[in-house]
Amino acid sequence: MSGGNLFVIAAPSGAGKTSLVQALMAADPRLRFSVSHTTRRPRPGEENGRDYHFIDEDAFRRMVSECAFLEHAEVFGRCYGTSRAAVEERLAAGEDVILEIDWQGARQIRALMPACISIFILPPSRGELERRLRGRATDSPDVIEQRLALAVAEMRHYGEFEYLVVNDRFDEALTDLQAIVRAARCRTDRQADFRSAWLNDLLA
Amino acid sequence: MSGGNLFVIAAPSGAGKTSLVQALMAADPRLRFSVSHTTRRPRPGEENGRDYHFIDEDAFRRMVSECAFLEHAEVFGRCYGTSRAAVEERLAAGEDVILEIDWQGARQIRALMPACISIFILPPSRGELERRLRGRATDSPDVIEQRLALAVAEMRHYGEFEYLVVNDRFDEALTDLQAIVRAARCRTDRQADFRSAWLNDLLA
Repeated sequence: MSGGNLFVIAAPSGAGKTSLVQALMAADPRLRFSVSHTTRRPRPGEENGRDYHFIDEDAFRRMVSECAFLEHAEVFGRCYGTSRAAVEERLAAGEDVILEIDWQGARQIRALMPACISIFILPPSRGELERRLRGRATDSPDVIEQRLALAVAEMRHYGEFEYLVVNDRFDEALTDLQAIVRAARCRTDRQADFRSAWLNDLLA
Repeated sequence: MSGGNLFVIAAPSGAGKTSLVQALMAADPRLRFSVSHTTRRPRPGEENGRDYHFIDEDAFRRMVSECAFLEHAEVFGRCYGTSRAAVEERLAAGEDVILEIDWQGARQIRALMPACISIFILPPSRGELERRLRGRATDSPDVIEQRLALAVAEMRHYGEFEYLVVNDRFDEALTDLQAIVRAARCRTDRQADFRSAWLNDLLA
């Protein structure tokens, strides 16, 4: 990995990850999403190459067999994957890439890109998580119970991530994320990379 | 190390470390200096226990033999040391401790406290470093040459530190330091420590 940093961000649903990541990206033009590949159909308004790369199952299987994905998973019968080439191109161009992903995808990526910076976002409390997952009053107790069990199962993997951000107050959690991104850019191994000529001059 | 974080900050003279660390501490009441022990005499205005713990050489040697120092060094015939007990007490109380130290002291501390966060501050350029070290016009070229050689020797150890902050623009360098401190507080191993009861409740 040269040039940019790769940030891997996971969270249970109900933690508020999407809003936090949107605010993080809006304030920092050096951060880029990676566009995933999927075998599901485009929804109205979705654009190929912008929201997803929409491909068929044969093409997806071919990419899997060619190890073209940093991570991939099947969700409700549809396949999703993060193209290794796309991420590496952006990093090589000095851009920082953000991947929103679950703990299983994060584990695959850590194995392939050990220099990635992994962040887990947690809700402020169990009670608040339950309130958020209860959602619309029309959901059955079973559905809510299942959502909560999924969220807890995801959260049990927090220890595999390098950083933990608790989304209690939104602004504080956003400032935490921004600090983690800024600190990552200060890591000596990253700077020794893109500042090597400058360092040689300084130490001559 | 439980509770607080230990930050070890080194720099060559001329990098502007003192002003940066003062500004960092002024804006963050959770950061504390550790008061060093020394065998040199107090200077006018210095107070025992506030600026240094002033002790004699016998007491210093006894502390060395008891492994009471996280690091110690002799400079121009005077001994300086960082008391392990003092640092550990502050960390146990949940305070974050800053040590300003050279690369040799940093190396000793990393060996004893591997969870410490080490930061190296660099000047913006060789030319600017030389200007700063030239100092008063009355200094002889030999003295200036010696200062520069010392600064370069110190800087050659930048690679042993986890973070690199380039003091080009003061405000940017200060924001880098603040981000490194904030990110350190978000590290999963640190939070898993002081948030353990809360995490148990969340994952119940």
